[in-house]
Amino acid sequence: MSIENRVMELGREARSASRVVAASEVATRNDALLAIRDAIADQEAALLAANEEDVARGQAKNLAPALLDRLVLDPPRIASMLTSLEQVAALPDPVGAIDGVRTMNSGIRVGKMRVPLGVIGIVYESRPNVTIEAASLCLKSGNAAILRGGSEAISSNLALGRCLATGLAAAGLPATSIQVVDTTDRAVVDALITLDDCVDMIIPRGGKGLIERISGAATVPVLKHLDGICHVYVDAAACPNKALAIVINAKTQRYGTCNTLETLLVDEGAVEQLPALARALADAGVELRGCPRTCAISPDVTTAATEADWGTEYLAPILAVRVVTGLEGALAHIAQYSSGHTESIVTEHHPTAMRFLREVDSSSVMVNASTRFADGFEYGLGAEIGISTDKLHARGPVGLEGLTSSKYIVFGDGHIRQ
Amino acid sequence: MSIENRVMELGREARSASRVVAASEVATRNDALLAIRDAIADQEAALLAANEEDVARGQAKNLAPALLDRLVLDPPRIASMLTSLEQVAALPDPVGAIDGVRTMNSGIRVGKMRVPLGVIGIVYESRPNVTIEAASLCLKSGNAAILRGGSEAISSNLALGRCLATGLAAAGLPATSIQVVDTTDRAVVDALITLDDCVDMIIPRGGKGLIERISGAATVPVLKHLDGICHVYVDAAACPNKALAIVINAKTQRYGTCNTLETLLVDEGAVEQLPALARALADAGVELRGCPRTCAISPDVTTAATEADWGTEYLAPILAVRVVTGLEGALAHIAQYSSGHTESIVTEHHPTAMRFLREVDSSSVMVNASTRFADGFEYGLGAEIGISTDKLHARGPVGLEGLTSSKYIVFGDGHIRQ
Repeated sequence: MSIENRVMELGREARSASRVVAASEVATRNDALLAIRDAIADQEAALLAANEEDVARGQAKNLAPALLDRLVLDPPRIASMLTSLEQVAALPDPVGAIDGVRTMNSGIRVGKMRVPLGVIGIVYESRPNVTIEAASLCLKSGNAAILRGGSEAISSNLALGRCLATGLAAAGLPATSIQVVDTTDRAVVDALITLDDCVDMIIPRGGKGLIERISGAATVPVLKHLDGICHVYVDAAACPNKALAIVINAKTQRYGTCNTLETLLVDEGAVEQLPALARALADAGVELRGCPRTCAISPDVTTAATEADWGTEYLAPILAVRVVTGLEGALAHIAQYSSGHTESIVTEHHPTAMRFLREVDSSSVMVNASTRFADGFEYGLGAEIGISTDKLHARGPVGLEGLTSSKYIVFGDGHIRQ
Repeated sequence: MSIENRVMELGREARSASRVVAASEVATRNDALLAIRDAIADQEAALLAANEEDVARGQAKNLAPALLDRLVLDPPRIASMLTSLEQVAALPDPVGAIDGVRTMNSGIRVGKMRVPLGVIGIVYESRPNVTIEAASLCLKSGNAAILRGGSEAISSNLALGRCLATGLAAAGLPATSIQVVDTTDRAVVDALITLDDCVDMIIPRGGKGLIERISGAATVPVLKHLDGICHVYVDAAACPNKALAIVINAKTQRYGTCNTLETLLVDEGAVEQLPALARALADAGVELRGCPRTCAISPDVTTAATEADWGTEYLAPILAVRVVTGLEGALAHIAQYSSGHTESIVTEHHPTAMRFLREVDSSSVMVNASTRFADGFEYGLGAEIGISTDKLHARGPVGLEGLTSSKYIVFGDGHIRQ
């Protein structure tokens, strides 16, 4: 069978299973999550053995140490899978709620019902834990899923797939509700992301290259997560202590995350705060690249920023710094260079804060808080499947609700349109 | 200048204007809507003259009568443009609302703010009234727009574009907030629908061919509206009078709309209702195409339905009729053939109604009501830019809210992440 036909078959099986999952009670889906947990616990030895095959192959292929580390399953990582399955089972049901029912002049009552999306395709790199995380969130939200992990993790993913099938069957749900693709052929991805009839959304999980490749070629809608070039703007009316705490936290708490600060903007009315900010950042080991004015004022900033710095997501201990003229200057810089992920203003002046909140067009806009808070768990979503930099459907941290849609429901009593 | 560069320039102007429109007060946008109304009223003679040029060109090109009719502007159609501008001005502001602010354990307060999408591209056929309808809804929702109407209406659209510019300027908004493309070169569409940096959403308005062409080639997200193959299912527990009224209304009130009934499903427990239903439909001039059982029971059904009939949107006085085995049979038929637009059940049995509501995966699902109610005005949206058959972002009738997005807003007081 050709890869295209095989993927089409997976898609049809998923579509068919999706109707059963969508119509299931949440108690059944929670039972399945806990049965999957039990299956993983029972199969721990087999999982570790399968993972050893992957790791051995990776070592033979000289995979980079960071990639090998992500690939490894060990008892603590398996334990954290078990915990996450329990946590997802404990979350409230994201589907079925009926909302906003109103009676129209015609007499019909119209409202909306939250429903699963249907079939979700997840394309990810070689972290086996994503298999369980993605499966559990799709299942909880009443969706079927097709999981296509990186080829380096194929043995681990197939072993996890058997646990998923065991758990689903134990709860009386079709084993095809969550399918792990059993071939590493790359043509699978191209077939999956263009299977419009059978797949409702594609979620790529991984680096920027993967996401760009997929969103460029997909015809199925893609939940995209691209750059995080995040800004903190220190306003003239900023409290210096809050500015210092927020800038240090936003830049240094973790360097490799998409909500990490990459460019600091300082109002020319607050430049007296700049030398101390720069000193603290330098003391924390951050390399600073400044505009001419920043360099002139701050002894710790000796490298001149180039145009390219304003558009770079460093994901490293490097920070670009620029002096701007008031809120207008900050808004103009952000409009030009931000990736639309997260921006924060530090100010004690309420009207300035509210203008910043209103006029910055990013998925998260903050006042007097660290950009590092832009996260599904910090926002109380209970889970996070990704952070969307798109404006449509879901924007910012995406929890279970991002895996759902809604439909209009209409109650009549023989009503006809005049 | 190449078409690509010209469209890129339009896009940059729109992006820049979009920031001004997004930051404007709703009173300013309403002033602009009313000033556009005044400009159209003032320019009525010039508009009619421009439209005569289009109509003369269309007649010379032997445009089909239906197309010519859509192209014509006359005083009543201009009057209805004026009324619709007043109505949109009177609608509530769809942006700026802050919702669901909650305090997290970390102490930050997190909520969501409804915001404009940014720049919307509208690609439509040769109805000049769409120019004003689309412009008014985009402007009201705080967006900039680029309007690309059919080449047959170019003179009318450019004349309307001058009224838009006059009205926008009178209210102090950039004239580039709503731009009418001034060339009929088809390369404009290809450039516009791939201008990801400057355009946030494309809305195609027109026939299925146009929509398929655009959604196939677009890289910008498209608000799609495809087929309406709508079903009414007459359950064994249906009230015969309600079933008759709903079926007749859903099929015959208008034949050419996407929410018109195209396939009637009758439970085998309700077949005794079928001859009377068929008789009433035949009396109303509807051609009936039935499954073997329908034909055997109903003297008025003499044509056998083929497989193709179940998948056809007739948009004409033709109806496919099939006897099914209970709710399961209806759900299976709908899952296989429905376009996911609108389906309705006629039943007095509450659990059956609720299962239908829950399990049918369509943008509108109804109980004891005519499918013809699936409409933005009937649902109380105040306006309708289209009916989405997509599941993401907006589903079903789309009003002003479909032209908006939301962003997370976070209030801290120097909060940092632990």
